[in-house]
Amino acid sequence: MITSLQNTAIKNIVKLSKSKERKEQQLFVIEGARELSLAIKSGYAIVAVYVCSELFAKTDYPDVLDTIFEDNIFYISPAVFEKIAYRENSDGVVALAKPKSHTLSDLKLSKNPFVIVLEAVEKPGNLGAILRTADAAAVDAVIVCDPQTDLYNPNVIRSSVGGLFTVQMAVCSSEEVLIWLNKNEINSYAAELQAAEFYQNIDFRTPSAIVLGTEADGLTGFWLKNAKTRIKIPMCGKVDSLNVSVSTAVLTFEAMRQRGF
Amino acid sequence: MITSLQNTAIKNIVKLSKSKERKEQQLFVIEGARELSLAIKSGYAIVAVYVCSELFAKTDYPDVLDTIFEDNIFYISPAVFEKIAYRENSDGVVALAKPKSHTLSDLKLSKNPFVIVLEAVEKPGNLGAILRTADAAAVDAVIVCDPQTDLYNPNVIRSSVGGLFTVQMAVCSSEEVLIWLNKNEINSYAAELQAAEFYQNIDFRTPSAIVLGTEADGLTGFWLKNAKTRIKIPMCGKVDSLNVSVSTAVLTFEAMRQRGF
Repeated sequence: MITSLQNTAIKNIVKLSKSKERKEQQLFVIEGARELSLAIKSGYAIVAVYVCSELFAKTDYPDVLDTIFEDNIFYISPAVFEKIAYRENSDGVVALAKPKSHTLSDLKLSKNPFVIVLEAVEKPGNLGAILRTADAAAVDAVIVCDPQTDLYNPNVIRSSVGGLFTVQMAVCSSEEVLIWLNKNEINSYAAELQAAEFYQNIDFRTPSAIVLGTEADGLTGFWLKNAKTRIKIPMCGKVDSLNVSVSTAVLTFEAMRQRGF
Repeated sequence: MITSLQNTAIKNIVKLSKSKERKEQQLFVIEGARELSLAIKSGYAIVAVYVCSELFAKTDYPDVLDTIFEDNIFYISPAVFEKIAYRENSDGVVALAKPKSHTLSDLKLSKNPFVIVLEAVEKPGNLGAILRTADAAAVDAVIVCDPQTDLYNPNVIRSSVGGLFTVQMAVCSSEEVLIWLNKNEINSYAAELQAAEFYQNIDFRTPSAIVLGTEADGLTGFWLKNAKTRIKIPMCGKVDSLNVSVSTAVLTFEAMRQRGF
């Protein structure tokens, strides 16, 4: 059992909270048995699992370690767990996993795809909430253009509740997405406050992609110019904008409603 | 100009980050010119405004101080501002304001009300995002039953982008809300994962209240038993739940869509 806070592996897990380290080492950290179980089911390579037995005794996912190679499971003391844990009320599991590559060409589309495109999303919590929505609505893919946040940021994993692992994703430039959308005959709808069309009046029953920008600045001119249609959600209040994860969910579930889900 | 970090008023603003202090002093802190301007327009009593001129020079709301009594404006140094500021990229304004009382009997309803009822909401960020949605959708009121978070928590104000000030709110017990809903002939719809009815099939064009529980545990038996109808959002993925602010937005905007907004 690892009890030393100075253990090299433990110190390395703490290091991996930094994006730069994750990139260099090609490793990221998964906390929580539920999230780990979704990552395993989605085919992520799990390099090591650190388990605090006292906390793991209370997990709702006791089977999560069943498929992990025994030599890759390391037991750790509560003090060590506390050092590497990121959340409150954690259930005693922290794993190291290898990132996947997320290329447009790897995306597998259904016959009538619905895709979410995010331009330069900034806040990990928003990206996570969008991935959770994308999972629930079974969208074909979430495509992130020029991300300002690392997909494997611990806050993305936490706020996606594991949706990061279950949803098809691609990371690329806006130009690449536009070419890909055209090639796949997917209509693009750019969400912006000043659009002429209300989203409720759009027919989302054909292949569709919704495109959303950053919270601070919205979409860039590239998408406003190149998307098939600009759409907006009615704003009847004084604040005059919505959280980007809320806007994404409203558009996505309206599309699902029209598609008879 | 206040330049000392030891200034009594400055130290008190820091204290007000604690719920207990806000309650005892009957004061709370508003950061940001936009939020302050919404609070002023909504009739909140502003007790004092602390301004860092260097940062305030860049605000998008330079008129915000126009209606503040001169003796209540205090200029502070950048170092002092940094001590009391809660956010990054702040625009140099921190104000002290008096909370309002939020009673059911004070709520003013439209002819065909739509109300959001939250049971025991825990995370300030979620409450804030819901208030922002409520503002955009112009709902009649947000009613919080037995809140686990203080309405005037700085994170509520920040994530609501000032929606805390623009939306009618009440705080009370679930029993009180139920009596009030019945008295006002408002149909209640309890959101839960195991419900039989999909939300898309509900007619929200009559007086309606949606009722949502905590992220961790959902609604208590009280609402599952006493709401008119239990409803669910389709879950087609593996994560099996949505962020509560996302669920609230999906239900709310579907109601608005049906109502022709």
